[in-house]
Amino acid sequence: MSKGLPDKNQNFSAWYNELVKKADLAENSSVRGCMVIKPYGFSIWEKMQSTLDSMFKKSGHQNAYFPLFVPKSYLSKEADHVKGFAKECAVVTHYRLINDDKGKGLIVDPKAKLEEELIVRPTSETVIWNTYKNWIQSYRDLPILINQWANVVRWEMRTRLFLRTSEFLWQEGHTAHSTKEEAKEETLKILDIYSEFLEKTMAIPVLKGIKSENEKFAGAVETFCVEALMQDGKALQAGTSHFLGQNFAKAFNVQFSTPQGKKEYVWGTSWGVSTRLVGALVMAHSDEKGLVLPPNLAPIQVVMIPIFNNEKEYEKINNAFNKIASQLDNKNISYKIDNRKNNKPGWKFAEYELKGVPIRLALGPKDLENNTIEITRRDTLKKETTNIKSIRDKISNYLIEIQNNIYKKANDFKNKNSHTAKNYEDFKNIIKNKSGFVYAHWDGTVETEEKIKKETKATIRCIPITKKQNEGKCIVTGKKSKGMVVFAKAY
Amino acid sequence: MSKGLPDKNQNFSAWYNELVKKADLAENSSVRGCMVIKPYGFSIWEKMQSTLDSMFKKSGHQNAYFPLFVPKSYLSKEADHVKGFAKECAVVTHYRLINDDKGKGLIVDPKAKLEEELIVRPTSETVIWNTYKNWIQSYRDLPILINQWANVVRWEMRTRLFLRTSEFLWQEGHTAHSTKEEAKEETLKILDIYSEFLEKTMAIPVLKGIKSENEKFAGAVETFCVEALMQDGKALQAGTSHFLGQNFAKAFNVQFSTPQGKKEYVWGTSWGVSTRLVGALVMAHSDEKGLVLPPNLAPIQVVMIPIFNNEKEYEKINNAFNKIASQLDNKNISYKIDNRKNNKPGWKFAEYELKGVPIRLALGPKDLENNTIEITRRDTLKKETTNIKSIRDKISNYLIEIQNNIYKKANDFKNKNSHTAKNYEDFKNIIKNKSGFVYAHWDGTVETEEKIKKETKATIRCIPITKKQNEGKCIVTGKKSKGMVVFAKAY
Repeated sequence: MSKGLPDKNQNFSAWYNELVKKADLAENSSVRGCMVIKPYGFSIWEKMQSTLDSMFKKSGHQNAYFPLFVPKSYLSKEADHVKGFAKECAVVTHYRLINDDKGKGLIVDPKAKLEEELIVRPTSETVIWNTYKNWIQSYRDLPILINQWANVVRWEMRTRLFLRTSEFLWQEGHTAHSTKEEAKEETLKILDIYSEFLEKTMAIPVLKGIKSENEKFAGAVETFCVEALMQDGKALQAGTSHFLGQNFAKAFNVQFSTPQGKKEYVWGTSWGVSTRLVGALVMAHSDEKGLVLPPNLAPIQVVMIPIFNNEKEYEKINNAFNKIASQLDNKNISYKIDNRKNNKPGWKFAEYELKGVPIRLALGPKDLENNTIEITRRDTLKKETTNIKSIRDKISNYLIEIQNNIYKKANDFKNKNSHTAKNYEDFKNIIKNKSGFVYAHWDGTVETEEKIKKETKATIRCIPITKKQNEGKCIVTGKKSKGMVVFAKAY
Repeated sequence: MSKGLPDKNQNFSAWYNELVKKADLAENSSVRGCMVIKPYGFSIWEKMQSTLDSMFKKSGHQNAYFPLFVPKSYLSKEADHVKGFAKECAVVTHYRLINDDKGKGLIVDPKAKLEEELIVRPTSETVIWNTYKNWIQSYRDLPILINQWANVVRWEMRTRLFLRTSEFLWQEGHTAHSTKEEAKEETLKILDIYSEFLEKTMAIPVLKGIKSENEKFAGAVETFCVEALMQDGKALQAGTSHFLGQNFAKAFNVQFSTPQGKKEYVWGTSWGVSTRLVGALVMAHSDEKGLVLPPNLAPIQVVMIPIFNNEKEYEKINNAFNKIASQLDNKNISYKIDNRKNNKPGWKFAEYELKGVPIRLALGPKDLENNTIEITRRDTLKKETTNIKSIRDKISNYLIEIQNNIYKKANDFKNKNSHTAKNYEDFKNIIKNKSGFVYAHWDGTVETEEKIKKETKATIRCIPITKKQNEGKCIVTGKKSKGMVVFAKAY
């Protein structure tokens, strides 16, 4: 393992790119804009999936699967949606390849042109609401609470592993309701699931809020979001939950009859998180030695490394590790015994630090004599020699402690990097020199929002919904503001 | 619920189509050739996934994710592969839509034409071996044991839900090895996993074998398969495991250095099963009343239906059901209490028979008095009144018994419908009148295979690998045969 990560403080972006590759999370594929998610990276995503999936199911949602392709005409049905999504997308125009008789090799068969082009789904609202039309007649058919795990494609010119790729994996929930209230409740319930997942599983504190008109989802009435702060002071939109109103029901003519026999349009929501979260996990916690993974998402929670001079010691140490392993099995703690002989312990130490394994155990001949074992935490890098008999409980406790400590560290960082701007000078100064979340009064207009973006590169991340807001004056125009909103530079 | 399934014996195909729709497994989408997998059908697929996934992981495989798109030129690199897969496929030619200035609405931007067309993956050997090239330098990098859960697209003109759709879901394993022996061992290990899964989880007996040259995977040296017999006497290829030899390694120039420092091409395998298995499950076990699901795959294993005349009875019965429910929770048995008041018990009985729920409990006022409960098995439709105190154990035992019984029934059917043809007349007669698996001697030539296919519509399903074979004479040409092979009409 050659470490040599770029300096995180000097060049955060290079540090991130190198870390993602060196820790075997993902790599760029030879297919433009698409990534290969490698087994180690994918197992983190699987853990995210499994936790989220059970949260969705517990709250009454079911999984289903809808087609990959969206007929071109569907995209046009919702006026705002088409503006947002019918731009950079993968367009299927033909359905056959043939061998060219002039010797050009494999060519597209000009006879196999589709009557209507198919778009590789950038998101599935249109296909799904077109299906819901047939599923919904009466209020008895509602609510529909469906989620789908899928791949989507949005053609991107500049891509970055996990953060922005042409193809990515995500979950997209699409629900249908008989009342506005119920749909809004669903939107917020999901926002709570996302924030709980981010905070408890990913150990990332979030800011819950609502997007400005300018930043909301194309086709939504309101977009709620969870925003997280990365270690370089930039914000990352970690998940969104959209209250769609009756927009898609109207676009696809989805009506239901009420208990009173009236016809009404159905109310909808949609919501999603993606493999982008793996990028957020890396940028929120990791350090100059590599990944720092919260135990709740670490594919390997404990690694055991033998230190030995001869075969006899090697055997004894392996026996001791196997005993510990069976204790960990009982506690459902995942582990790996790395007893490969062709790599030195020091090399292995660095390797598992790079991979972010929360706990490292090292056992040598002296430990064997003294019934001790060396335990090292990845989050603090603190070593300790402890009695081997109590190792199981020590590990259990440390896993909880590490999870909490990683969260605390991220939360302290977020608090330290949340600022309030008194005026526009102050604002520009903070964005330029300190970065982070900047609370500021805003007059609510798109003009001011865009002026700020143009002059500082900061955007409105959200209008917070957790704090009570006081009125004030816009830092740019001095006009009336309903409350502070949160600005930041963002991914 | 209006049942009215077509007669299974008269029109198996119509019975299947209607059952899949009425039982809420899937439906045709408005996107040509693509299906919508509905929540009930998807939950069966999720159970299949989860069982298979843990079998793959226990045998050392890891999941990863590779791009959806295959550059056109990749398909051409393996000579046989291109013939098999570069035909009916979805071709992405452009990456942008724009609004037409002549008012035609949304059109493909002619300026956004891709330099090289991208094919939506029909299978991923080419993309994956192109990636493996960078992952493999030395024997120390081998083996690579990777699986991917993904969607694939093969443009189909005639589609049938689950059995043949343009887009389908599957898992595809792709492994790389340093020796031929190890790769062949892997191919067979996976074949065993598939047959164990089919037999133990899906309760479907299979025939294990090897495909004829004519029927093997395009690009493989050998294709192994598990074949299952459906209730109409037609065979269904349930899973395939391919020994790729060094074909893809040579096509993509993937070499490794041996411990002796020599360069050699890597040996490969690939293997997959798909959502087709849901179709197989339906066709293998179901009956004129609807689905018959093996308990190991049933989304709901037990349904409880109250029979009541008044609110007081309703409450008492619900209390009794809740007690049973908590007993089932302890045993990890899934259940549903259907206490909706707007549907009659008889309607519900028919509904859950249609959905294939293995066990139905019904509780009425008389049962309450006598401390009894009615239990009905879906597989035999036998009713029984039993003491409510022993219901938990009864259910546990029945779930095992039902699983075994469904398998036994399918196995008896397979045995009864496995025939041996003495000569070609006999063969034609069996295929025409009895159908099923037909064992017959074959001279090993493509000519004979195609003559039989043309004249009888039967194809070689496989050359069995489990039975010891005796030499004989081809039923068509009288030439020497190494052993009997299995013919059938197939899906």
